[in-house]
Amino acid sequence: MPAPNKDGLPLRVVVSALERLYPPDTAQSWDRVGLVSGDPEQPIRRILLAVDPTLAVIDEARDSGVDLIITHHPLLLRGVHSVATTSAKGAAVTELIVHDIALYCAHTNADVADAGVGHALAAACGLGATTGLEVTEGVELGRVGDLPEPVSLGAFAERLAAALPPTAGGIRVAGPYEAPVQRVAVLGGAGDSSFEAVRRSRADVYVTADLRHHPALEAREEAAVGDGTPYLVDAGHYASEWLWLPTLRDRLVPELGAAGTTLEVLISEVRTDPWEFVVGARQPSSGGTT
Amino acid sequence: MPAPNKDGLPLRVVVSALERLYPPDTAQSWDRVGLVSGDPEQPIRRILLAVDPTLAVIDEARDSGVDLIITHHPLLLRGVHSVATTSAKGAAVTELIVHDIALYCAHTNADVADAGVGHALAAACGLGATTGLEVTEGVELGRVGDLPEPVSLGAFAERLAAALPPTAGGIRVAGPYEAPVQRVAVLGGAGDSSFEAVRRSRADVYVTADLRHHPALEAREEAAVGDGTPYLVDAGHYASEWLWLPTLRDRLVPELGAAGTTLEVLISEVRTDPWEFVVGARQPSSGGTT
Amino acid sequence: MPAPNKDGLPLRVVVSALERLYPPDTAQSWDRVGLVSGDPEQPIRRILLAVDPTLAVIDEARDSGVDLIITHHPLLLRGVHSVATTSAKGAAVTELIVHDIALYCAHTNADVADAGVGHALAAACGLGATTGLEVTEGVELGRVGDLPEPVSLGAFAERLAAALPPTAGGIRVAGPYEAPVQRVAVLGGAGDSSFEAVRRSRADVYVTADLRHHPALEAREEAAVGDGTPYLVDAGHYASEWLWLPTLRDRLVPELGAAGTTLEVLISEVRTDPWEFVVGARQPSSGGTT
Amino acid sequence: MPAPNKDGLPLRVVVSALERLYPPDTAQSWDRVGLVSGDPEQPIRRILLAVDPTLAVIDEARDSGVDLIITHHPLLLRGVHSVATTSAKGAAVTELIVHDIALYCAHTNADVADAGVGHALAAACGLGATTGLEVTEGVELGRVGDLPEPVSLGAFAERLAAALPPTAGGIRVAGPYEAPVQRVAVLGGAGDSSFEAVRRSRADVYVTADLRHHPALEAREEAAVGDGTPYLVDAGHYASEWLWLPTLRDRLVPELGAAGTTLEVLISEVRTDPWEFVVGARQPSSGGTT
Amino acid sequence: MPAPNKDGLPLRVVVSALERLYPPDTAQSWDRVGLVSGDPEQPIRRILLAVDPTLAVIDEARDSGVDLIITHHPLLLRGVHSVATTSAKGAAVTELIVHDIALYCAHTNADVADAGVGHALAAACGLGATTGLEVTEGVELGRVGDLPEPVSLGAFAERLAAALPPTAGGIRVAGPYEAPVQRVAVLGGAGDSSFEAVRRSRADVYVTADLRHHPALEAREEAAVGDGTPYLVDAGHYASEWLWLPTLRDRLVPELGAAGTTLEVLISEVRTDPWEFVVGARQPSSGGTT
Amino acid sequence: MPAPNKDGLPLRVVVSALERLYPPDTAQSWDRVGLVSGDPEQPIRRILLAVDPTLAVIDEARDSGVDLIITHHPLLLRGVHSVATTSAKGAAVTELIVHDIALYCAHTNADVADAGVGHALAAACGLGATTGLEVTEGVELGRVGDLPEPVSLGAFAERLAAALPPTAGGIRVAGPYEAPVQRVAVLGGAGDSSFEAVRRSRADVYVTADLRHHPALEAREEAAVGDGTPYLVDAGHYASEWLWLPTLRDRLVPELGAAGTTLEVLISEVRTDPWEFVVGARQPSSGGTT
Repeated sequence: MPAPNKDGLPLRVVVSALERLYPPDTAQSWDRVGLVSGDPEQPIRRILLAVDPTLAVIDEARDSGVDLIITHHPLLLRGVHSVATTSAKGAAVTELIVHDIALYCAHTNADVADAGVGHALAAACGLGATTGLEVTEGVELGRVGDLPEPVSLGAFAERLAAALPPTAGGIRVAGPYEAPVQRVAVLGGAGDSSFEAVRRSRADVYVTADLRHHPALEAREEAAVGDGTPYLVDAGHYASEWLWLPTLRDRLVPELGAAGTTLEVLISEVRTDPWEFVVGARQPSSGGTT
Repeated sequence: MPAPNKDGLPLRVVVSALERLYPPDTAQSWDRVGLVSGDPEQPIRRILLAVDPTLAVIDEARDSGVDLIITHHPLLLRGVHSVATTSAKGAAVTELIVHDIALYCAHTNADVADAGVGHALAAACGLGATTGLEVTEGVELGRVGDLPEPVSLGAFAERLAAALPPTAGGIRVAGPYEAPVQRVAVLGGAGDSSFEAVRRSRADVYVTADLRHHPALEAREEAAVGDGTPYLVDAGHYASEWLWLPTLRDRLVPELGAAGTTLEVLISEVRTDPWEFVVGARQPSSGGTT
Repeated sequence: MPAPNKDGLPLRVVVSALERLYPPDTAQSWDRVGLVSGDPEQPIRRILLAVDPTLAVIDEARDSGVDLIITHHPLLLRGVHSVATTSAKGAAVTELIVHDIALYCAHTNADVADAGVGHALAAACGLGATTGLEVTEGVELGRVGDLPEPVSLGAFAERLAAALPPTAGGIRVAGPYEAPVQRVAVLGGAGDSSFEAVRRSRADVYVTADLRHHPALEAREEAAVGDGTPYLVDAGHYASEWLWLPTLRDRLVPELGAAGTTLEVLISEVRTDPWEFVVGARQPSSGGTT
Repeated sequence: MPAPNKDGLPLRVVVSALERLYPPDTAQSWDRVGLVSGDPEQPIRRILLAVDPTLAVIDEARDSGVDLIITHHPLLLRGVHSVATTSAKGAAVTELIVHDIALYCAHTNADVADAGVGHALAAACGLGATTGLEVTEGVELGRVGDLPEPVSLGAFAERLAAALPPTAGGIRVAGPYEAPVQRVAVLGGAGDSSFEAVRRSRADVYVTADLRHHPALEAREEAAVGDGTPYLVDAGHYASEWLWLPTLRDRLVPELGAAGTTLEVLISEVRTDPWEFVVGARQPSSGGTT
Repeated sequence: MPAPNKDGLPLRVVVSALERLYPPDTAQSWDRVGLVSGDPEQPIRRILLAVDPTLAVIDEARDSGVDLIITHHPLLLRGVHSVATTSAKGAAVTELIVHDIALYCAHTNADVADAGVGHALAAACGLGATTGLEVTEGVELGRVGDLPEPVSLGAFAERLAAALPPTAGGIRVAGPYEAPVQRVAVLGGAGDSSFEAVRRSRADVYVTADLRHHPALEAREEAAVGDGTPYLVDAGHYASEWLWLPTLRDRLVPELGAAGTTLEVLISEVRTDPWEFVVGARQPSSGGTT
Repeated sequence: MPAPNKDGLPLRVVVSALERLYPPDTAQSWDRVGLVSGDPEQPIRRILLAVDPTLAVIDEARDSGVDLIITHHPLLLRGVHSVATTSAKGAAVTELIVHDIALYCAHTNADVADAGVGHALAAACGLGATTGLEVTEGVELGRVGDLPEPVSLGAFAERLAAALPPTAGGIRVAGPYEAPVQRVAVLGGAGDSSFEAVRRSRADVYVTADLRHHPALEAREEAAVGDGTPYLVDAGHYASEWLWLPTLRDRLVPELGAAGTTLEVLISEVRTDPWEFVVGARQPSSGGTT
């Protein structure tokens, strides 16, 4: 394990930079963003970026001499009443404190930022200029834009797959492989609640994640009484939000100016998608619902 | 289209048989089960069984001269205020009435019955005797039992896949392919809310569906501070509940006694899983979260 | 039964005209207005106007070759989970669809419109210029205005009775027959909740319907600690809202312009007030509360 | 005004007798029964019984030298925050205290008692033995029983009218005048919420009061998909509950034993039904909804 | 007892003056201010001011020939359903009406007025110009200002004690006796809910009342991770709000102009703090939490 | 700082003993009891008992080589979303983990146990046999009993003061110093919500803590319409619950049997009552509310 440089930047300086990029007051009211563990004065030299603050990510940080983990998902979205090591949340908090690792979360405030999840997912889909998909609590969630020219739904999905980190489940698609798509709505993370906005956007395809059976099927039924769109692409919760990490890495150091040059920023090697393998899937040639 | 026999059984007789098999008062309080369309006196000769009452299933029924569709999922779980054809629900209701097709739903009452979803899924997993996973509103939801001998998680999943109808996404598994499993908890449909009961059951593996990123990952984290179990198998919402249809077919006709011999009971050919193809999945050999 | 003209106007054209007259976004948030059954493309030649979409009204429509019923009260204000014929709502929906009759409802949006219930009731009371009684969710409910000169409460009620459709219960009045009234507040339908607004309006008499014992008696008690006003006139829920139907008939065809000339618009002959006869009433000469 | 006998019974003794007849813990949880004004030691010599504690009833009590008013309806069902004379409730409280008149209310506990409203209304309908209509919060609300032999609905209503105190509005009936009825459900006061129980009771006719347009019409529509019953009789809120007053008068004095012989118990002459006259009613011969 | 002058001002005139000084619409929405008992036309000659409308205060009013009591705390903040003398609230209402004493309450509207509780408490603390502590429902609650120069916390508390009416419990202080304070936040009455606003105000000391163990201790713990401020002064609910009474006396008569010169305004001699004595307290020299 | 003996008992053994004495399922549903920090396998040699887990108590534990703190009040009653050192809760959690100190809380489960707060407070009041004051969620809260003979309220309070740890505010009493008391109700901690139960118990005096102005004054007013009881004794939240600590010390070691002999159990020297000094109090001779 490399020795951390004790002359690092104070944590409060890094936090200030993060809060300029992702102002906490742009987070949704139910969200819990900001500093989860650590002391504002502790020195930061090496930073690890990850989607989820799992125990494996904390182990990776410890093994890599990391001082600060920045994640998309909050560790303590629901408040905890104990940090004993008998629960996963308690074990994570204890590990962070024992190893002197600070944790910072930027969640729905990172979803909506220019250097955020929505824009990263839109870029991975090949979109240029986009507008907000919907406005919730005064901030724009999701993006909508047009591809330069129509492509088939299958080719669109294949191209997106190439930009995403690999997962066991891959990308699930509802709609015919050959159907042309041009107008695209994207929303990183769980997208069950935004179908109304997607229909209003007149998108041909909706790229999101964590769609459950009933909302997805009802959306397809509504599409069936129209022209069949929007088709659905479930890109995976972890994978769709992972796209933000390179953006964050590229933006954080410049935001710190000269001081930032002493920082090392790593992207986690841990895949925090919970699924390890898939059996029994039937690939594209099997398609069709009737 | 075959001509329906107008001398069929009155719908009310079929409904009575269904309510003996799946008493409506064993449904959860939020559920909406029973007769959705039709007249108690209309004659029934041909019945179609399906997981979801989609427009494609209704088309199939019309094309097959079916008088009654029996589905697992309610068409109108949320009440409707209009049946105009401008919405999917309205179009479905209109199609049913115009074509004189009755619709009956057995949902959470079918989950818990002996001839129900839980037992069908347990059987597909290779379980013999089982006990209830948890008690909700006075009825047992889900089943728990032991395999005759331990098998690897991968082999267990492969065997289950062979019993399920094919889907594009297949079966997602969280846990090592080679890990041994013997005690199994099953819950057809969406299983996000029952992790506490699964842990109390000391199951090695939890077979359910529609697991989202956060609940699944948090369950895996809790497992990580213990012995790594329960592993998770997401068998697909449609596929895990489809298993009930053959049971229903085999039980309905005998329940009607002599009268039932005039009935024809079909299982729908329509796959109502909304996903048509998958791209970018990485199969078992890629496994491992660190 | 006359043969409907298959060259009628598409339903969507009639709906557009109705929504210009009674914009749906002026309905109260709890209300359910708009198209309840039918297909936007079905041809409309003959329209029936009624207060309530009862089974008898639907029978009248069917017997008269009507393509579209327009009612004031929603059929499905509370959502339904079944349209089986075993319930009245289900039987009504089934009858509408089987006989290819569309149903459209304009309720609280019709209450507040210029060509609406409030203005029709005000006119029947002999009022000219009026102002809104109260503002709820941004729209004016009820009307207030002054008669050209004072009349006795009894004469006022008699004149109103002459304008209303006959009902078994007639018009109930609280206040002395000879008391003079000039300032009048009106609110079609159930008026229990608007006594505060009526008192603020300084009306001498409040014309509304469906007043229950406790609200009416408490309003009379509050009046008793003042000058005895407002007196109360309960004109009947059905009767007070029926006044809107002729207005609607006169406004709908011109709103459709040239296209409208092919339409025939009928007012229902069915009295949907549920009360069929009254016994034991004691008429005016018996008055007085002490 | 007669001078009250200052050697009367202490109020607490009368209250104890009332609470034996109408135990307060049999009142519904939302209700507010018991002593509303007065001091337990004040002497009681003359008692006035009324349905509602209106200002006119309090005037009558004062003019008659009454020490205690017993009413069915609570004066302060909703709590008051002021007893200034600017509101009707405040004026009533002030009048009671200034004139040293105690007020006691027995409401839903009187509805359900043997010497209560339900039994009195059942008796006025000609019923002998009855059972409870429904059980709410552990007590039986309403009564159901059979007439010795079927009578026409019209004759039934006429007979009931003869037993009730006169009101301007009389008794409203929904159903054909000549239809035979034998099984009768009764519920004094507002009966909108008990239609389900009435249907379960298989009553031919439901006698209650304060029915509003929508619940009454929906009940008639449900009846229309069956055999047309239950018919509805709205006997008036005041009139249907007034029937209890003679029962109370006859039971209270014996309940007090020897001590009770000094008491004088009067029934109020004030009609607290708010309606003073009716215009424009069309009597039985006009009946029929088509 | 002095004979009240029956030529006094009508109560409504005094109420109008009070409502100019303390507009009712500046009260919080949950509050209940205004006239609690009395008649607008009754003559007022002698007025008693008190913090709480207790039975002892009403006795004092009766013994002093008082026509109107003005209190800070509402008598009927929670609505009452009975004014029988068996409850304290009923006994108070009965006493007021029997003795013809009106009661008027100015509560949260008096907290926020210029001639109000907040300003009186700020003045007693030695503050000159102040700003609002926080804004709730559009009005400023509490005051914040700076002393001319720093003083020790102990001296500050001693000076405040000299301005307050005596109570058995005195003033409780959390913080070191010698710690310097200059910036002061004040909030009369119960101050548990405003710690966030106090911290935002950067006050050195927070003067309020009715602080409970947990909120006070948590506030001290938050202070401990900063610079130790804000210190806490619990001045007593009764005592901190009593300060308003002299202000009210001095402002009410001038507000009435010439008419007011006939009024006599007294401040109650009754201490309505419930605590009568204290034992076992250890005074300042014992201080220190570690 | 003494070196902790690393051969101590595993934390899980101590936790088991605590949960036998204070079963977690006897805690109220809103409460949060049990292990707050630490690992079940960490060795415990020295234990510190305190009412509140403040930062000063944690410092004392660290300085004394303590491995486990047991407190009455939960550290995290409201869940936390961050343990950064910028908040008091975060600083406390961080200090506990950094110094390897476990924290265990027994709160409402300790209130109700035989070796609990209620019994300790009853004993300090001189009560022998007691019964429960009220039953909440199936467990008895508070105690009621009789003194061997009546004593004056003042002498009663003085005797209690001698048993309590010293605090700046001491014990506040409502009632006359010389009034005799014999029947006593006790409830450690905040007692505002139990006045109804106290009145039902017919106690002469109610010993509790954290009483606020309005509940205490209203209780005294209700007493005033009766015989003046119950008098009130506010013994201080910290002081009244501190009495439990010696009981816990005396019961914990025997509960552990032979293993327990290696444990050292200390009672904290830190007074966690937030109040440091009092000014301006007027002692007993000044009493009386008129």
